[in-house]
Amino acid sequence: MKRLLKGGDILIYEGDRFSCLKNGFLGIDGDTIDYLGIEAPKETYDQVKDMTGRLLLPGLVNGHTHTGMSLLRGLGSDLPLKEWLFDTVFPVEDRLTDEDLRIGMELSLLEMIASGTTAFTDMYMSPGYTARAVVASGMKANLCRPMQSFDPDEEPMTCRRMREMLALYDEWNGAAEGRICVDFAIHAEYTCTEKMVRAAAEEAQKRGAGMHIHLSETAAEQQNCVEKYGLTPAQWFDKMGAFNGRAYAAHCVWLTAEDRALLKERDVTVIHCPESNLKLGSGVADVPAMTDEGLTVALGTDGAASNNNLNMVEEMHLAAMLHKGVRHDPTALPMDQVLRMATVNGAKLQGRTDTGVLAVGKKADVIAVDMDRPHLAPCIDPLSNLLFSAQAADVVMTMADGQILYENGDFLTLDRDRILFEARQAARRLLG
Amino acid sequence: MKRLLKGGDILIYEGDRFSCLKNGFLGIDGDTIDYLGIEAPKETYDQVKDMTGRLLLPGLVNGHTHTGMSLLRGLGSDLPLKEWLFDTVFPVEDRLTDEDLRIGMELSLLEMIASGTTAFTDMYMSPGYTARAVVASGMKANLCRPMQSFDPDEEPMTCRRMREMLALYDEWNGAAEGRICVDFAIHAEYTCTEKMVRAAAEEAQKRGAGMHIHLSETAAEQQNCVEKYGLTPAQWFDKMGAFNGRAYAAHCVWLTAEDRALLKERDVTVIHCPESNLKLGSGVADVPAMTDEGLTVALGTDGAASNNNLNMVEEMHLAAMLHKGVRHDPTALPMDQVLRMATVNGAKLQGRTDTGVLAVGKKADVIAVDMDRPHLAPCIDPLSNLLFSAQAADVVMTMADGQILYENGDFLTLDRDRILFEARQAARRLLG
Repeated sequence: MKRLLKGGDILIYEGDRFSCLKNGFLGIDGDTIDYLGIEAPKETYDQVKDMTGRLLLPGLVNGHTHTGMSLLRGLGSDLPLKEWLFDTVFPVEDRLTDEDLRIGMELSLLEMIASGTTAFTDMYMSPGYTARAVVASGMKANLCRPMQSFDPDEEPMTCRRMREMLALYDEWNGAAEGRICVDFAIHAEYTCTEKMVRAAAEEAQKRGAGMHIHLSETAAEQQNCVEKYGLTPAQWFDKMGAFNGRAYAAHCVWLTAEDRALLKERDVTVIHCPESNLKLGSGVADVPAMTDEGLTVALGTDGAASNNNLNMVEEMHLAAMLHKGVRHDPTALPMDQVLRMATVNGAKLQGRTDTGVLAVGKKADVIAVDMDRPHLAPCIDPLSNLLFSAQAADVVMTMADGQILYENGDFLTLDRDRILFEARQAARRLLG
Repeated sequence: MKRLLKGGDILIYEGDRFSCLKNGFLGIDGDTIDYLGIEAPKETYDQVKDMTGRLLLPGLVNGHTHTGMSLLRGLGSDLPLKEWLFDTVFPVEDRLTDEDLRIGMELSLLEMIASGTTAFTDMYMSPGYTARAVVASGMKANLCRPMQSFDPDEEPMTCRRMREMLALYDEWNGAAEGRICVDFAIHAEYTCTEKMVRAAAEEAQKRGAGMHIHLSETAAEQQNCVEKYGLTPAQWFDKMGAFNGRAYAAHCVWLTAEDRALLKERDVTVIHCPESNLKLGSGVADVPAMTDEGLTVALGTDGAASNNNLNMVEEMHLAAMLHKGVRHDPTALPMDQVLRMATVNGAKLQGRTDTGVLAVGKKADVIAVDMDRPHLAPCIDPLSNLLFSAQAADVVMTMADGQILYENGDFLTLDRDRILFEARQAARRLLG
């Protein structure tokens, strides 16, 4: 089907900056953008949708999350990190069944779709369930089965997690016309042996798959690693070969200047997760230094247990203001950079060259923000209104590969009421 | 009329903590709460509204804003502070007519009502217009005509601003059954002479009115004041008598420990404005130190030109996570404290003893948050979902003095479409 989005203001990306086509036309042929301009296309389209008063932009890419954790939303707020994780989150996680994970993950898909996210990068248990639900939802995702190993004698190629990882790759990589990609993952330096990291990195590179890690999230992680290996976590992962292929690292709050230079040299994408880093007391990553030095930085929410939502609109808003305040510099991390993090750089992290921007020939991953709302009037600067004034609920349409997943509050691919019912039931069962 | 809100979860405040009455009943007689409990009241009510699945809480109090500035939303984002203020904001402000101010202010009322704010404290030009619009809207506001004077020879009692201030007080204080209160205000230390501050403080105290100031917003303000007077701005205002009555001070980013002790001794309420302080690069106020030391802290958005919205739900979320991150302490500024800032302490700042909490005998200033949404499920901890997961758009009812101002997207006291149309027209006229 050919569909024309007519009359909206369209955020296009050229020469590292976003600009706005006022009252433009965006044509879609099947899953691909085939027209973009301020004049009406000559071709005819099967369907014309009026987008007057709406801002069209690329679907947001959530660069780091744990979708299965949404059933734990709000658990243990305000607790010290160790009590939160060891006494509160882990005991509940131990009770999660595959069915719970499926429900939590579907709940996450609802929330992400309603807030304008079209693609995400996940790290959690039972990614096979996630893959099935993502396919049904119409979203895109890079999935993995994260490696963990505390036993130096455990043989990588025969351990359960590696077998699951390889099976996941074989079954799902490239599925649903490429909407599903499978990457490899190491949970973190402090939860994995050298042998395991080396093996996972090799297997990822053999397949041209990405490598997803947690890196330098807390001061303790950074310090303990230096004490243990005489290397920072970034140096340690690099030595293990984890950065030889496409690699992306979540958090990066405690990187040294040398770490940043290393990540730049190895073209590792940093995933900034400002809400989670604040809420858990981890700190504030020095993103302006990273972008000034030319690192690629994407944006992620982390899981709903430490955020406590998967709201990329809010994450952009926070990223846009946080660094200005912490640096005492209102010019820090300008708006173009923030939107790039949530779109262009997210697509790069996922190894997807066919999305991340609105342009002819790219996949039609498009969201519409309703600008006809009191908190978005007047619209002196659409980018400023989007990043500093908008809410996720201003997203009124979410489209991936040309398919509308959400429109004006209705989910077109997922059963909202069934999922919310199951989520409440599951939480009651888990927490009493 | 007697109206019963039935089936909602009700946040009540007892012993400095909030707790939740599950599936409760909240009865309202005219403008006052006359019943609160988990059992149905014996009395009959004229109207029963089903609030199942909703969280009821006190209307939010925006402790510091400049409502007339909303027409400037998004102007000069990412600019250095001086360029933003002197080259961008001031020239446009100079062109604002009274009509523009009325429109910008009505736009602000729409936004505040839709995001659950029932009362606000304003500081801007033409407060008479604001008063009229606030009365019509059904909201509550503490208004002022801020004093500024750069001429040491200007006589306070004959200057235009003082005359306007006194006239405003005489005309509006206590109007609309107390919904309008008039306080006095000094814009800031660096924009006012000693003589003027002394006179305004005396006039305020004669009338038992409050005193609203900007205090220690930037490092430069703090440093310049010390160089000029050998006193910090807080010490200087205290010496001028500005803290002899009810007083409240916005920002307070750069207070010293001595300043904090002084404000505590003088019972000055601090208004924390985290979004504005971040966006303008001012810094992060040490709110955990203030609350630990027993200061009263309220919460405010500042104006929409430096935020860029008047969204108290977002402001609470930011306050709840920012200090944890900056202090590297996930226990900093716990949730009860944050909600208290936006309700109880806001009412205290405004000198209103009849609101700020849901309790029998208090005014029915109530908002309802729809918890039946993907990003608010499951509801393990209602306070956590409210502060860390909710958006302003989850507010589905806003009531002040028992009158419903907003319900499910509809404004019952204001003409949304007319105001949005006028706001766009005015912005076009002002900015070309």
